[in-house]
Amino acid sequence: MKTIDVCLSPELMHLYEVRNRTVVAVDILRATSCMVTALAHGAESITPFAQMEECLNMKTKGYLTSGERDGKKVDGFDKGNSPFEYMGDQVRGLKIAFTTTNGTQAIEKSKGAKEVIIGSFLNLSSVVKYLLLGENNVLIVCAGWKGRVNLEDTLFAGAVVEKLKDYLGPDCDAPLAARHLYNLAKDNMAGFLNDSSHVKRLNRLNIYRDFEFCLSVDQYKILPRLENGVLVA
Amino acid sequence: MKTIDVCLSPELMHLYEVRNRTVVAVDILRATSCMVTALAHGAESITPFAQMEECLNMKTKGYLTSGERDGKKVDGFDKGNSPFEYMGDQVRGLKIAFTTTNGTQAIEKSKGAKEVIIGSFLNLSSVVKYLLLGENNVLIVCAGWKGRVNLEDTLFAGAVVEKLKDYLGPDCDAPLAARHLYNLAKDNMAGFLNDSSHVKRLNRLNIYRDFEFCLSVDQYKILPRLENGVLVA
Repeated sequence: MKTIDVCLSPELMHLYEVRNRTVVAVDILRATSCMVTALAHGAESITPFAQMEECLNMKTKGYLTSGERDGKKVDGFDKGNSPFEYMGDQVRGLKIAFTTTNGTQAIEKSKGAKEVIIGSFLNLSSVVKYLLLGENNVLIVCAGWKGRVNLEDTLFAGAVVEKLKDYLGPDCDAPLAARHLYNLAKDNMAGFLNDSSHVKRLNRLNIYRDFEFCLSVDQYKILPRLENGVLVA
Repeated sequence: MKTIDVCLSPELMHLYEVRNRTVVAVDILRATSCMVTALAHGAESITPFAQMEECLNMKTKGYLTSGERDGKKVDGFDKGNSPFEYMGDQVRGLKIAFTTTNGTQAIEKSKGAKEVIIGSFLNLSSVVKYLLLGENNVLIVCAGWKGRVNLEDTLFAGAVVEKLKDYLGPDCDAPLAARHLYNLAKDNMAGFLNDSSHVKRLNRLNIYRDFEFCLSVDQYKILPRLENGVLVA
């Protein structure tokens, strides 16, 4: 039986051997939700950057630049970290350079993996189907918040573990914990997350609409994957 | 309102400022359960060591030595990591030098804290009362398994967060997650933990009796605390 494990924070990545695994990078609020949305709406590619300066420099090469720190758009960047900035024809045909507080850091730390795909509730079923048909063991890497564990990424990991429970065995306790939390939350995820620290942070920024959208399941059928450091659909 | 936070793995300790906090070090299976048991049965003190050699050398200074790695007693040490080795008159009046796979590592990493106390289900109410009356913010440090998050330490953290919920506010998402898991498990903790990786590990070692004892609540009223690197009741 293939196995599935969950790394609850990028700060724990050194404990996991990923060379032979498929890594699912997750930052529900909101980096990977934005990436899925942008690629579903026709963006040509997304290049993730851990560093802001490097990302902003991509402007000179014709890229649209997206920069977020602490939940807010960074001055000088074209776009921030709301999925509603990546819909309709706003990004169609464009190359995007993307940097965020947590999500692009998690992707950076996943680069040693056999393959890296991007997960969010928006493309949950596509992720699950891909992992089910794939040959590799799986590691879900939760972006968390500045190294700390968060609830929303853990719930996503738990959803994947739950849906694959008959096919992929848990490697350790983190997937069990995530699965328990998901089953507790699944009938009302927004309510469950209302006390969470990042939702409070987002509410202060007045972006509850983003929060609700990022929890909506299977809006898109795409599966972004990292190819030579660039995300494509 | 004072705050409470949970560090789910010693590998995340660098993310937490502990200088002004009371740290509760926890390794339910089985280091902190053993320590509480030994001090409740009259051991004079317990000196935790991260390194095995250093710990074993304490024999020459008249210490009883306890050494465990990967769930098993290490050759050359007087005792292993079962609470039943620390009952009755087996340790009365003795100084113990103690090293384990995870628990003593967590204590080592907690040493910068304002104060360090030792928690287990065996002395749960004593821990809760102490934190309630204390003036400091609280961080519960889960020993985990070789850096990874485990369920049993998380459940203990959740129990403390739950019992103090009207008095200490959660600092982040980890205490919320731990509390949810505890409330899910509390009516049948042994059953809840049966799938966990460490319980499987212990069952392979045929020490189910330890597992059941370590989950039993309030066997002892003591509160071990670290003073100059040494644990006393």
